[in-house]
Amino acid sequence: MMAEADPITAFDRLAAGKIIGEDRNHQWRVACAPIGNVRPEDFEFANEPVLEPKDGEVLLRTLYLSLAPVMRAYMQGRPAAGETPLEIGDVIHGRGVAQIVKSRHPNWRENEVVQGQIGWQTWKVSSMTPGEKMVRMPPNGLPAALGLGILGMTGLSAYAGFFFCGDPKPQDRMLLSGAAGGVGSIVAQLAAKIVGADVVGIAGGPEKCAFVRSLGCSAAIDYLDGAVAGAIASTRPDGIDLYFDNVGGEILAAALEHLRLRARIVLCGSISEYVRETPFGLANYTRLRATDSSMRGFFVYNHLNRWDEAMDAMAGWVHDGRLTPHFDMIEGFENMPKALVSLYHGRNIGKQICRVRGEPEDWQ
Amino acid sequence: MMAEADPITAFDRLAAGKIIGEDRNHQWRVACAPIGNVRPEDFEFANEPVLEPKDGEVLLRTLYLSLAPVMRAYMQGRPAAGETPLEIGDVIHGRGVAQIVKSRHPNWRENEVVQGQIGWQTWKVSSMTPGEKMVRMPPNGLPAALGLGILGMTGLSAYAGFFFCGDPKPQDRMLLSGAAGGVGSIVAQLAAKIVGADVVGIAGGPEKCAFVRSLGCSAAIDYLDGAVAGAIASTRPDGIDLYFDNVGGEILAAALEHLRLRARIVLCGSISEYVRETPFGLANYTRLRATDSSMRGFFVYNHLNRWDEAMDAMAGWVHDGRLTPHFDMIEGFENMPKALVSLYHGRNIGKQICRVRGEPEDWQ
Repeated sequence: MMAEADPITAFDRLAAGKIIGEDRNHQWRVACAPIGNVRPEDFEFANEPVLEPKDGEVLLRTLYLSLAPVMRAYMQGRPAAGETPLEIGDVIHGRGVAQIVKSRHPNWRENEVVQGQIGWQTWKVSSMTPGEKMVRMPPNGLPAALGLGILGMTGLSAYAGFFFCGDPKPQDRMLLSGAAGGVGSIVAQLAAKIVGADVVGIAGGPEKCAFVRSLGCSAAIDYLDGAVAGAIASTRPDGIDLYFDNVGGEILAAALEHLRLRARIVLCGSISEYVRETPFGLANYTRLRATDSSMRGFFVYNHLNRWDEAMDAMAGWVHDGRLTPHFDMIEGFENMPKALVSLYHGRNIGKQICRVRGEPEDWQ
Repeated sequence: MMAEADPITAFDRLAAGKIIGEDRNHQWRVACAPIGNVRPEDFEFANEPVLEPKDGEVLLRTLYLSLAPVMRAYMQGRPAAGETPLEIGDVIHGRGVAQIVKSRHPNWRENEVVQGQIGWQTWKVSSMTPGEKMVRMPPNGLPAALGLGILGMTGLSAYAGFFFCGDPKPQDRMLLSGAAGGVGSIVAQLAAKIVGADVVGIAGGPEKCAFVRSLGCSAAIDYLDGAVAGAIASTRPDGIDLYFDNVGGEILAAALEHLRLRARIVLCGSISEYVRETPFGLANYTRLRATDSSMRGFFVYNHLNRWDEAMDAMAGWVHDGRLTPHFDMIEGFENMPKALVSLYHGRNIGKQICRVRGEPEDWQ
């Protein structure tokens, strides 16, 4: 009998021998639409020339790239709202932090650092259209990498989902799934350190559970131990006022069985749905009725109008030490596919990003 | 080949020959816990003596009894929150309107009319405990029967669900399921005539659809025609701002596919769940995320603290003609099981009640 191969090892082989240079635009493209989880053969590595920006365009040099569970859906041709569906051969969608190295665009200057839709590539010529959702990073003394975490869409997801949709109160008995992940590790800190609520975090494995407690959670539930429903009942014996859901599926169903009167559920992400062949059927949604509870979904791009308010608050809390950024940083553009598959195996602690070139020069 | 028996006919045979007199307390009890839909053999008819009230008790003479889809769950030993589970041989739970004919209770007088937990019986001796949720009917010139409709828990369900949970606005594009039913026929009028919203109602069959339009709905969808999802899309081409859900299941799933930004779903009832062996798995609950929408459940007994406010408003609207009561009244206590099974076959137009003795004397 053969031992089952570690799925990550196959991605190490995919990265092997790929040398990333400054003179070429290296790209990862969709080779196949993933069926089930992503496989090495779903990715194609390409090298293109670095193009010159024309009038109204800028040349962007990629510093960091983000990894998010939803990217598997992109590779299957299921785009986020308002985005173009990917086809075979397209550069994979993804947000990144980049520095403008040449500008022929009236609104953007050389050396500025931006975050937005870069795609899985080491250079990008962009006309900075609204669809790319490019945002200037303020030179506020904080690392540019935060543009993919607390000071980016991940941070806005945490801030808008928690404050605008969750309506948190200091006396809330909270439950948080995906507590060691990108959004979750920020929400845990907002809840425990800014609002002062009591938070039970759910994560996979003892290492992540220790991390979750270090973020301020009063208890951590290891979902790899099984029996999550029982662990919710024992850590939240009086029930849940606020459940911030990053996973969906069975854990959402378990949380629905332990709601207090007028409990709120915020649906932020559904990582458990991304790797499932058929969606989870939430049979006990009717539990919302007995307790007058609500389940509210949100999509971060519907909250861009409050970007400045959120980012100012978050930057202030990072400066005064109440909020700590946590990245799971993988080195090297060649390792992007590996970084993505690691997400589905629950390996990341904090927001998963890839360091392509790292912090910019001549910026702050 | 035999033609399939009309399920209602078997209930006519169950009622046949049962004479209801004043001198005995006639009762319907649970004979078997229903599996699937209720059958005649699930009911047992009993005659008991009419008891004399002792100190602290009153003797209640049943005038009307309510029928509600949830009663099948009661008969299966699944009580409403805070109620006692029924066992085999117990009188079936149910609300009714009754007149006090003798009182040895300091807070209740002879001739007063009350609504509350009477059970399926023609007389009741009661100590008027809080668990019975007895409410005095005001002699306001309106029929006592309204205590099982607009001026009772059905009315409070419609009022609280719609106004407190639905947060309706005149510009709302509404969808309403179970629009010809007890709660639905009130919500349709509140929405169309009080708030002035545009309402599409869902009901079963052309007769009910005509009724739903007569309530003020701009369009009616006949779910017996099939293709409800397509009909929702064509009658609500701009999507739904507010969906008031009385049915759950597939129609809820279809509505989730047509939400506008920040849409609200109010979960009031789930009649489709009551006759299903395994609960419906709501696979597309994640649709709440893309549109920043919410799904709010409610349980009418959590809103009793606003009873007076709701009933004063509703009685005023009945008096000034903006709200019209619609009952589907079945005659005779012997027909209670038939009236219940008719609900699951979608036969009732308006709130289903049973006229046991009808309007009281010496009251208003």
